Amino acid sequence: MNDIGAHLAAMRNTAPLVQNITNYVAMNVMANALLAAGASPAMVHAREEAAEFAGLAQALSVNIGTLDPDWVTAMEDAARVMNDAGKPWVLDPVAVGATALRRDAGARLLALKPSVVRGNASEVMALAGADAAGRGADAADEVASAEAAARDIATRTGGVVAVTGPVDYVTDGAAAYRIENGSAMMPRVTALGCALSGVVAGFAVGQEPLPATVAALAFYGLAGEEAAARAQGPGSFLPAFIDALAGVTPEALDRGAKVMGA
Amino acid sequence: MNDIGAHLAAMRNTAPLVQNITNYVAMNVMANALLAAGASPAMVHAREEAAEFAGLAQALSVNIGTLDPDWVTAMEDAARVMNDAGKPWVLDPVAVGATALRRDAGARLLALKPSVVRGNASEVMALAGADAAGRGADAADEVASAEAAARDIATRTGGVVAVTGPVDYVTDGAAAYRIENGSAMMPRVTALGCALSGVVAGFAVGQEPLPATVAALAFYGLAGEEAAARAQGPGSFLPAFIDALAGVTPEALDRGAKVMGA
Amino acid sequence: MNDIGAHLAAMRNTAPLVQNITNYVAMNVMANALLAAGASPAMVHAREEAAEFAGLAQALSVNIGTLDPDWVTAMEDAARVMNDAGKPWVLDPVAVGATALRRDAGARLLALKPSVVRGNASEVMALAGADAAGRGADAADEVASAEAAARDIATRTGGVVAVTGPVDYVTDGAAAYRIENGSAMMPRVTALGCALSGVVAGFAVGQEPLPATVAALAFYGLAGEEAAARAQGPGSFLPAFIDALAGVTPEALDRGAKVMGA
Repeated sequence: MNDIGAHLAAMRNTAPLVQNITNYVAMNVMANALLAAGASPAMVHAREEAAEFAGLAQALSVNIGTLDPDWVTAMEDAARVMNDAGKPWVLDPVAVGATALRRDAGARLLALKPSVVRGNASEVMALAGADAAGRGADAADEVASAEAAARDIATRTGGVVAVTGPVDYVTDGAAAYRIENGSAMMPRVTALGCALSGVVAGFAVGQEPLPATVAALAFYGLAGEEAAARAQGPGSFLPAFIDALAGVTPEALDRGAKVMGA
Repeated sequence: MNDIGAHLAAMRNTAPLVQNITNYVAMNVMANALLAAGASPAMVHAREEAAEFAGLAQALSVNIGTLDPDWVTAMEDAARVMNDAGKPWVLDPVAVGATALRRDAGARLLALKPSVVRGNASEVMALAGADAAGRGADAADEVASAEAAARDIATRTGGVVAVTGPVDYVTDGAAAYRIENGSAMMPRVTALGCALSGVVAGFAVGQEPLPATVAALAFYGLAGEEAAARAQGPGSFLPAFIDALAGVTPEALDRGAKVMGA
Repeated sequence: MNDIGAHLAAMRNTAPLVQNITNYVAMNVMANALLAAGASPAMVHAREEAAEFAGLAQALSVNIGTLDPDWVTAMEDAARVMNDAGKPWVLDPVAVGATALRRDAGARLLALKPSVVRGNASEVMALAGADAAGRGADAADEVASAEAAARDIATRTGGVVAVTGPVDYVTDGAAAYRIENGSAMMPRVTALGCALSGVVAGFAVGQEPLPATVAALAFYGLAGEEAAARAQGPGSFLPAFIDALAGVTPEALDRGAKVMGA
């Protein structure tokens, strides 16, 4: 891929309205990450309006981090609107293996064939039905362990699956890429994975899901590298990271992206 | 207005207990903004206690950002308590034009005659029943386009309406002011508009709604200017802004306020 | 106590999975504080999964800050799982005296005999049934006024009670300690008390509740001192504080802890 920066430029040019049905922990960070990246976030989850708002949104992200049965219905309704209109949506299966409620929600949402699934290795393995070691939102498995599960899910959905970790793995079931951008500080700040799923949704508006996801991950990881160079710890990392999401240019992304075919 | 700093001093002297029934994205920022400004925030929204707590609070802000039908009932109950006791309350009609649920909530809350309505141009126009272009929480209309709608709402409620944007417009239907304080960074950080509505509620305790709202907006905008001078981007802007809310003195506000009759 | 640093080292070595059923304002800060301190946070509150997840968690914190009747049931269910398994749990009775809903929730949770109760003076007094002056989440009473209430609760539950303020007081009903670490900036940032309750839960995994609580409070307060030395106000205090939670070493804690028998 040699047009990574162009994908960032296109996303900023569109400034897509991204609806997020996401967890309480992530809502604020996710909105700020999307704003800084150049998208327009909206947090709209009530059953009474989620599907109606999906008609206005250009992309949707759904995240099961702080789950409630009513919310799953809202997620399904909104996802169907996106599917019917040919608009992209991203599933973030937070801690999907931890409880029956999460396993059921993950299965129901996966059946709706998300354009992109973005999770850590434990989550992608659990979503695919494989054994996984994750407990909460933290990954306890290596990215490499989840590559087969990622290809399996992508083949079933016809979409893209991104396994994020020290080196990310992105596949549509046939082609695959690895992205080496990022910082060891990122998993030490809560909700940065969740926020990435929203950013991926923004990149997927009007762009092919596979290269759009790769570009979003490289962009996000590069911003993490810039923030790590300025931060004294995980607390100062977050504002520096939001600054970097706003500051990374398409040209800098073309120079700094570390993407390889896999 | 030449007693703007005095309004800040009076608010800090009161340290008002401000109840906020607000959206999930804004809760943390709103609490920190109120604390930094000198008020005492409380986030209490459950139907089972919202009205009871309103009996303790000195002001109330209601915000429909992440709406739920149950919450609207809690908002109405709490607003009625404030009305019956002659205590001020502020309505923040986030994205009111976007869905039927929001339009209905906005209309029901407006019928209870809030002391102050604070929104962006698209929201104020939609609340007044005018055509508006806003999609999510971002304004897509100019402040000037919403001045007639603001006066219309103020006349209907007998309260104050503040349209915030690059230059804010505040009116009680008869007199009007423009406030030029602020920074272009402010709409790039989520929930700063929401948090402002809470701060306005704090200023309105024991002070006339019109000058109190003008003073709150000038104070908030001046803090934004100070933060912008220190920030590297929207991420570092937020902590600098909270610092500035705590640091702006009544004297600095008298010097820095840019308020004109309109 | 001369093994305070050892308690921090042990907590970090365990990296305990701490489930938090907490308020919306605190969720993000609490997750980041736990991550920075060295624990693994999970925010899981739905009735449909709270008890199931408690089976996986090593400790639990419950916080009534933004209360809902359904959540109280989830809190009770999860607390019973912890009790049955002999795992520690912490009760944070935010603004417990303010409304009937809170008084009832506080009484029901206290009846389940939490391993640790952590609150400000007004909250501890209200929980014990004493007269208290607190209005919202802010304390309006002195720590010293709540010492008898703390001993009374500890005797009733067989657990530990921590009253936090300028000088913290911790007791198991018999022995007691005072901790002088901390910064006047801490009550000016929302949810730092809530986040502390989660950190206490992490320290209590595999360690005696009384010294674990004392060590957690000294650690937290020392991080506050370090942050205050670097902050320009309450906004820049928060990232500096999260940095300090990650940066304080067991050795620095042994040197900096200000703990006295009471």
